Amino acid sequence: MKVLITGGAGFLGRRLARKLLQRGVLRNSTGEEEAIDRLVLFDVVKADGFTDPRVLAVTGDLADPLAISDLVDTDTASIFHLAAVVSSQAEADFDLGMRVNIEALRLLFERCRQLEHRPKVLFASSVAVYGGELPEIVRDDTALSPKSSYGVQKAIGELLLSDYSRRGFIDGRGVRLPTISVRPGKPNKAASSFASGIIREPLNNEATVCPVTADTRLWLLSPRQAIECLVWAHDLESEAFAQHPVLNLPGVSVTVGEMVDTLGRVAGKPAIDKIRWESDPVVQRIVGGWPGCWDMTRAHALGFTGDQDFEGIVRAYMADDLAPG
Amino acid sequence: MKVLITGGAGFLGRRLARKLLQRGVLRNSTGEEEAIDRLVLFDVVKADGFTDPRVLAVTGDLADPLAISDLVDTDTASIFHLAAVVSSQAEADFDLGMRVNIEALRLLFERCRQLEHRPKVLFASSVAVYGGELPEIVRDDTALSPKSSYGVQKAIGELLLSDYSRRGFIDGRGVRLPTISVRPGKPNKAASSFASGIIREPLNNEATVCPVTADTRLWLLSPRQAIECLVWAHDLESEAFAQHPVLNLPGVSVTVGEMVDTLGRVAGKPAIDKIRWESDPVVQRIVGGWPGCWDMTRAHALGFTGDQDFEGIVRAYMADDLAPG
Repeated sequence: MKVLITGGAGFLGRRLARKLLQRGVLRNSTGEEEAIDRLVLFDVVKADGFTDPRVLAVTGDLADPLAISDLVDTDTASIFHLAAVVSSQAEADFDLGMRVNIEALRLLFERCRQLEHRPKVLFASSVAVYGGELPEIVRDDTALSPKSSYGVQKAIGELLLSDYSRRGFIDGRGVRLPTISVRPGKPNKAASSFASGIIREPLNNEATVCPVTADTRLWLLSPRQAIECLVWAHDLESEAFAQHPVLNLPGVSVTVGEMVDTLGRVAGKPAIDKIRWESDPVVQRIVGGWPGCWDMTRAHALGFTGDQDFEGIVRAYMADDLAPG
Repeated sequence: MKVLITGGAGFLGRRLARKLLQRGVLRNSTGEEEAIDRLVLFDVVKADGFTDPRVLAVTGDLADPLAISDLVDTDTASIFHLAAVVSSQAEADFDLGMRVNIEALRLLFERCRQLEHRPKVLFASSVAVYGGELPEIVRDDTALSPKSSYGVQKAIGELLLSDYSRRGFIDGRGVRLPTISVRPGKPNKAASSFASGIIREPLNNEATVCPVTADTRLWLLSPRQAIECLVWAHDLESEAFAQHPVLNLPGVSVTVGEMVDTLGRVAGKPAIDKIRWESDPVVQRIVGGWPGCWDMTRAHALGFTGDQDFEGIVRAYMADDLAPG
């Protein structure tokens, strides 16, 4: 089977690619395990570091109909749609966010609709579809209330996914990702970038800034478990998404203060001292409006597992990504 | 001030136009009453029957950027965006629905964004943004769960309205209309067309078909009160829509059986005998999934009034629209 990852040069895309190559198989539309003989990584920059002959790294513009037409064909069995303009960037550049987060997604779905088969399309949505006044625990039937352009664009993506699925154009599966922490590498343009930075930088003996208050509550998922969830969502029967095409993935609820306390327990006080607290009202407004917890009943019933606690998340980062000091 | 009604040749558009001409004024963006000196009625067919010199009837394609560019200019103070491909039609022709209900709306909002002022944009959304398993009384914080392409497209319109408003590109106001009953004239391509037909046709001594079961519960608003609500929503301060850009308008909750009983009380048994019950699974699925009641607290707090009961709705139709027999 041929599998496409959009955003394939991004952090999650590359990690998912490594996982799929190692696994070698995915469940196809009839529920049987099938070998992945082609893995296409599409992004605006080339996904590097892959020598596996199954990998094809392609660069291009996802909002270009010709590029999409070449990319998705009769052999494309599954698509992991991870490409996105992230939160702070979509807030800063409205047109770019609309183009990538809505128009490209629509082109991708339209391309799938032209095919005779019904590709599996896994869409990564976000905690940012919620905002404003929220119940302490967000439920599956809590209204979406995005307060950022990114959140609005993800919510629109969910609606398109649901209708293209209902009409039988795609076999769509939406998953709402909590904030991913701890991401390795450099800060990115997500408003939540600090949720990785305040752990990652101190563990790498670098200074960092925390732009939100210590009582800000976050809903987190480790990269390791995020990848497990994406693969699990892909392999479930389509029936699991028939009534409700989008699922809230498991997370861990912590305040930023608790995250820093955990860092101190794991790495000592010198690590904490690397953090400078400097409020950024834009980041506080966006991230502070996201839910700090949502109900996991459905995710657990469908067999998804998340992280145990935030200390486990920090230790997963140290095991998976921290360069041996 | 110059006012634009899209869908201006439609039933609600024409009725709104007559109301605005009779009123002569609307509140402008500073909250002051201002004379309407130009009323543009845009639609795919010409809005006929208007001799008032303030009226300009324009025909064109709302999904054509050039048409929109000509239509909305620096003088356009207010837009009532009523144009839509309705429910059964959007279900039958997916592309047409996407084109008019999403792409044209996006073009209209983009055109407003180019202007130096911030036009008031009143967007008519629908009961169809809800569907599936719903609480008995839908609340303002109940998740949207559209189960038709029309409902999905209206929900996307709401999200776009909310973000274009939040970013200051438009002064947006969304109102979710209950099913409008009793519409005068001919059946249309809305799945809910029967909700007018089972009253209108018997009162005009014509046979009609009821495609849903008698226990199907509907949430209704008379044309007369719908127009009052549209004007009221336009004239409210933008503050009323700042946190929640879309509002559920008042309605009356009745079953189809109760509607027919009311018809019998008002017009006698011969009227009821004009109705043939013949199930249509598509209509039953779409309309049966819409809410039969939603919470009106916010609408009432903002001063909206609806109908007293269904008998009042029937009598309003007889007074406003029934040709003297």
